[in-house]
Amino acid sequence: MANTIEKWLERFSKCLERGDIDGAAKLFGDECFWRDLVAFTWTIKTFEGRGEIRAMLAATLGAAAPGDFLALAEPGETEGIAEGWFAFETALGRGTGHLRLRDGRCWTILTTLQELKGFEEPAGPRRARGLEHGAVPGRQSWLERRRQEAAELGFARQPYVLIVGGGQGGLALAARLKRLEVPTLIVEQNERAGDSWRKRYRSLCLHDPVWYDHMPYLPFPDHWPVFSPKDKMGDWLEMYARVMELNCWTSARCLKAAYDEATAEWRVQVSRGGRVLELRPRHLVLATGMSGFPSVPAIPGADAFAGKIVHSSQFDGAAAWRGKCCVVLGANNSAHDIGADLVEHGAQEVTMVQRSPTVVVTSEALMEHAWGRLYSEDALQRGITTEIADLSVASVPFRLLPSLQKPIYDAIRERDAALYAGLQKAGFLFDFGEDGSGIHSTYLRRGAGYYIDVGASQLVIDGRIRLKSPAQIERVAEQTVLLSDGSVLTADLIVLATGYGSMNQWAAELISPEVAARVGKCWGLGSDTKYDPGPWEGELRNMWKPTRQLGLWFMGGNLMQARHYSLYLALQLKARYEGLDTPVYYLEPVHHP
Amino acid sequence: MANTIEKWLERFSKCLERGDIDGAAKLFGDECFWRDLVAFTWTIKTFEGRGEIRAMLAATLGAAAPGDFLALAEPGETEGIAEGWFAFETALGRGTGHLRLRDGRCWTILTTLQELKGFEEPAGPRRARGLEHGAVPGRQSWLERRRQEAAELGFARQPYVLIVGGGQGGLALAARLKRLEVPTLIVEQNERAGDSWRKRYRSLCLHDPVWYDHMPYLPFPDHWPVFSPKDKMGDWLEMYARVMELNCWTSARCLKAAYDEATAEWRVQVSRGGRVLELRPRHLVLATGMSGFPSVPAIPGADAFAGKIVHSSQFDGAAAWRGKCCVVLGANNSAHDIGADLVEHGAQEVTMVQRSPTVVVTSEALMEHAWGRLYSEDALQRGITTEIADLSVASVPFRLLPSLQKPIYDAIRERDAALYAGLQKAGFLFDFGEDGSGIHSTYLRRGAGYYIDVGASQLVIDGRIRLKSPAQIERVAEQTVLLSDGSVLTADLIVLATGYGSMNQWAAELISPEVAARVGKCWGLGSDTKYDPGPWEGELRNMWKPTRQLGLWFMGGNLMQARHYSLYLALQLKARYEGLDTPVYYLEPVHHP
Repeated sequence: MANTIEKWLERFSKCLERGDIDGAAKLFGDECFWRDLVAFTWTIKTFEGRGEIRAMLAATLGAAAPGDFLALAEPGETEGIAEGWFAFETALGRGTGHLRLRDGRCWTILTTLQELKGFEEPAGPRRARGLEHGAVPGRQSWLERRRQEAAELGFARQPYVLIVGGGQGGLALAARLKRLEVPTLIVEQNERAGDSWRKRYRSLCLHDPVWYDHMPYLPFPDHWPVFSPKDKMGDWLEMYARVMELNCWTSARCLKAAYDEATAEWRVQVSRGGRVLELRPRHLVLATGMSGFPSVPAIPGADAFAGKIVHSSQFDGAAAWRGKCCVVLGANNSAHDIGADLVEHGAQEVTMVQRSPTVVVTSEALMEHAWGRLYSEDALQRGITTEIADLSVASVPFRLLPSLQKPIYDAIRERDAALYAGLQKAGFLFDFGEDGSGIHSTYLRRGAGYYIDVGASQLVIDGRIRLKSPAQIERVAEQTVLLSDGSVLTADLIVLATGYGSMNQWAAELISPEVAARVGKCWGLGSDTKYDPGPWEGELRNMWKPTRQLGLWFMGGNLMQARHYSLYLALQLKARYEGLDTPVYYLEPVHHP
Repeated sequence: MANTIEKWLERFSKCLERGDIDGAAKLFGDECFWRDLVAFTWTIKTFEGRGEIRAMLAATLGAAAPGDFLALAEPGETEGIAEGWFAFETALGRGTGHLRLRDGRCWTILTTLQELKGFEEPAGPRRARGLEHGAVPGRQSWLERRRQEAAELGFARQPYVLIVGGGQGGLALAARLKRLEVPTLIVEQNERAGDSWRKRYRSLCLHDPVWYDHMPYLPFPDHWPVFSPKDKMGDWLEMYARVMELNCWTSARCLKAAYDEATAEWRVQVSRGGRVLELRPRHLVLATGMSGFPSVPAIPGADAFAGKIVHSSQFDGAAAWRGKCCVVLGANNSAHDIGADLVEHGAQEVTMVQRSPTVVVTSEALMEHAWGRLYSEDALQRGITTEIADLSVASVPFRLLPSLQKPIYDAIRERDAALYAGLQKAGFLFDFGEDGSGIHSTYLRRGAGYYIDVGASQLVIDGRIRLKSPAQIERVAEQTVLLSDGSVLTADLIVLATGYGSMNQWAAELISPEVAARVGKCWGLGSDTKYDPGPWEGELRNMWKPTRQLGLWFMGGNLMQARHYSLYLALQLKARYEGLDTPVYYLEPVHHP
C-alpha cells in the first residue's frame, strides 16, 4: 500500500515538475476530485473530473511550483481504496495532503497549505525567549508592550485585519493571526468575550462533543465535560482571548463599513464607550456567527398580544414561565431545548409548532456512528489527533459526502428504531434529509434543520411537549395563538425558534445591500435540496475564502470549522499582509444574491 | 535489558507477595535506595541501604499489599546500569515506579502512588457528560451549581481543605483536589489570583524554562515564551483558577489558625471584605511560598536614612530611580535582576554588596547541560513528556544527586570559562556549591544562593553594576551607607535582596511559635553544608507530606515541584477525605525547630 501511494506521488510529482498537465491528469480516475485549501488556488475549491483539474493546473502550476511530495507514515487500504497522507511544498509554503487511489488512479486528493515559508508560527523550537540579556535602556516589559499595543491599535496604528464578532470564529482567527504577527482587532458588542454563549438560554450545552470543539493551540484539559455548558464555554473563550493576548474591544459595535477603492482600505465606524471611532483596516472579516442574524417571521396580530414574543436567541430562561402557557414555533435544536427547559420549570402547557420535517438523531447515536470514528477518546487512543481528524473530514469531497453518510443513518435508524416509532406515533415529522444523508449534510446545506436529541424527543413522544404538526402560526390575538390547522392555543409566551438568516445579511446591514448582493449568500453547497438551491458549487459559499468584494471575508460555523478553517483564512490574510503574490484562481459566480 | 528488569520485578514481586522480606532485601545491592512517594509509606521518604528497606517493608507490606508489577516499554542500559519503568498496584491504589539495576541487583527504586482505586480522576473516558437527558425538575445549570458552590463554601459548607496562598503551589494543589472532588478553598491576600507574580519587580521573568513550568492538566500553548514574563504568568494563573473552577477567595487574609483536637478541625480566622470569618477545615495547607516570608536584616541607623529601604519582594520597579544612587544588598537572583533593572533605567550608581559566594550559571548553560535532557523541545521530540521528566527527576535519590550533578558543572565551568574569569577579575565571589554540585543541589539545600545568569553578570564584569565583596552593611546614615570594609556609599535607595525565611515562620505567625517549633523548619535535606545543617534527612523537610502537627501541610517550591508534588499531597488528602486507612510509616525527628 505504502508503495502504491508512494509510486503515485512520485509519478504525479514528476509530471508537475515538468509541467506535464496531461500526464498528471492521466493519473486521475474517471471519477475524481481535487480539493484544494489555499495551496494551489489561493481559495477553497473542489475540482471535479479531469477537465476541471486540468484547467486548474494549467492556471496555477507556474506560480504554485509544487514539489517535494513525500508520503507520510502508515497508509491504509479498505475495500480496494488505498489511502494515505503526504507532505508537499509550493513556492511559498508547506502543505499536507491526503490521497485516495482506486485501481492505482486518483479518486480523491486533498491539498492544504499549512504554513508560509519564512513566516512559520513561532511555536516549539521557534518560540520567543521572553527575555533579552543584559541592560537595554528603554526596553519595555511584556506588560508595557502589551498595554502599548492595546492602547495604540485602532488609534495610532490601524489594524490590518478587523474582525467583527468575538465568538469562537473571531477568536480562533485572531489567535492564528496573532501567532502570525498580523495586527488584528476584534470588535465584540457584548461586555465580555464569550458572552455570545453566555447570553443564550439557560439550559444550553454544546451539541457537539468536546473532542470536536477544541480551539486552536490550547485544547481543553482532559476532564472537560463531553457537552460544554454554555457558561463554561463562555469562560473558556474569555480566558482564551486573554492568554492568547488577543486585541478585543468589548462593548463595541460595528455600525457601518465602506470600502475605499482608492486607498484599498475599509472605513469602519465603531461605537465604543459612547464615542464613534473610525477604523481603517485593509481587511474586514465578518465573524458574526452563522447564528447571528435572527430570522423573525412577521406574526399578524403581534401588537395585540398581551404576552411576550421572543426570538430563541433572546430567550433567557424558563424560570419565569412556571404555570404559564407557552408556544414554541419551530422544531429544531433551539425549539427542543427551550421546550424541555419550559417543561422542566413547570410551565402549564408547552406546545411545539412544527412547520416542516426535522432531522432527529440522538447524541449517543452520533457518537457511536458518526463523530466517534474521528473525534472521541477511542480515536485519540488510535492516534487520531484533532489535526488528523480535521484533515480527514476535509479530505472527503462534498459531492461524495451523502453516499458516505447514508449508511451511517441507516444504522442509526435501526439503532434508535423505538425512538423513531415513538416520534411517528406522536405525529412528529422527521426525516434524514431529502436524500437520507443525515445531519452533517443538512448542516452544510442549510446550517439548520435538525435536532441532536438529548432527551426532548421523549418529551414530545410522552406528550409533555405537545405537538402541532405540520402547522404554522396564522395570527395571534390578546391571549391566543391561531394555527393554520384551525386550532387555537392559549399563550402567555411565544418563542420563535425560527433560526437565522444568511451571514450576508450582516454585509447588507453593515456595508450595503449592493455589496451583500454582489457577494451573495453565505453557506450552502448548491445541492439543489430544500433551502439549498443549485447550481452545485461544491464548497460552502463565501466561507473562509475570497469573495466578490475585495477585502471582505466571512468566518463562521461550529467550533470544529472555526478551528480548522481559521488556519486557511489566516494564511490568506498573512500572505497579503506580507505582500506575497496570491493569485486567486476562481471566484464562484453568484447565483443567490 | 527488558529481560533483566522484568526478571528482577518478577522475583521482587514474588517475594513481596509471600511476605518474604529477607528475600526481597537480597535483591538489593550493597549500595541501594528506595524512594517512596506515598505508595507504601503514606509519606515521602527515601530509604538507604538494606536495613532501612527491610524495616520499611516489615512495617508497610501488610497494608500496602503490593502486586501486579509490570515492566513498561523500552528499558535502557548505560554504563552497566539497566533502568526501566514499571507499573504496580497496592491495596488502595495504582502506581508508577522506576528501577535501576547494577549487576542484576537494585541500586535505586522509586515507587509513586498515581491514583486511588475507585477514586480515579474523571479524565478522558471518565469525564462528565455535561448534561443529563430529559426534563429534570429543579436541576441546576452548570452556572447555577458553580455559583451555589462558591456561595456555600466557607458558610453553609466547610471546606475539607483550606489552602493559604493562591500562587502556583496553592492553585496546582487546588486543581488536583477539584478533580478528586475534595471540597477545597483557597484564601489569597491579593486582589487577583496571579498577583503574587504580578507584584514583583518589573523586569522579572521566570528563571526556569517553559518546559519545566507547566501547571497540572493544562500545559502552556506551544508558542509560550521560554522564560515567562511575570505578568503573563500572573494572567495564566488567574485564568487557570477560573477555568479549573477553583474556589479562591481573593483579598482575603488568613489571620490566625488553631487546631481543635476534640473535633479534629482547624479554626481559622479569615478577614474578607472587612469581616472576620471563622472557617473549620480538617486540613490546613500553607502554600504561602518558599519566597513568602521576607528575611529583613536589622540595619543600624535605618531610622535616620533619608532615602528608601525596601526588601526585594516589595521593590516595584527602577523607573523612579533614574539619576539616583542605589545599593543592593545581596548577590543572588533578585539582587542581579534588580541591579540590572536599575542600570537599564539610568540610575547614577548601582552597587551590589555581596556577603557570601553565589552559584552563578548562565541560563543557556543550564538548558544545554542540565534542563535540556528532560525539559526541552528536544526532550519532547524524544518522547519525554512532562510526566516522564518529573518522574525521572524524582527517581534520583537525593544522596546520589551531587555526584551526578558535579560533571554537569565541570562542563559548564569550561563552557563559560570567559564569564567566570571575568567575574573573578571583578572580585565577584562565586562557587558551585560547597561540593561543586551546582544550582539544583543548592536550591534543594537552601532554596537560595544562586544566580541564573540572564545578563547581569556581564554588567558586574563591566562595572556597570559596581561591586563590594565580600562586604556587609554596617550601618546607614542620612544619605550614606557604611560597609564592613570601611567604604562609604552615597545612597538614595537600599534594596534588601536578602531572601526569605523558612516556611515554618508562617506557621509561627498564623498558628503559634510552639506549633512551628514542633514541626520544625521546612525545606533542606540535612546535607551538612552551609545553611543546611545535618543530620541527613534525605528529603525536603516537611514538604508535601505529613508533619508533626495533625492536619498541617506545607506546599511550596518552583513550578515543577508545584506540578509534580501537588499530586502526592492531593492523594494524601483525598485518601483521608474518603476515610481510607493511611498509616504514616515515619515522621522525621525535628532537629531544627
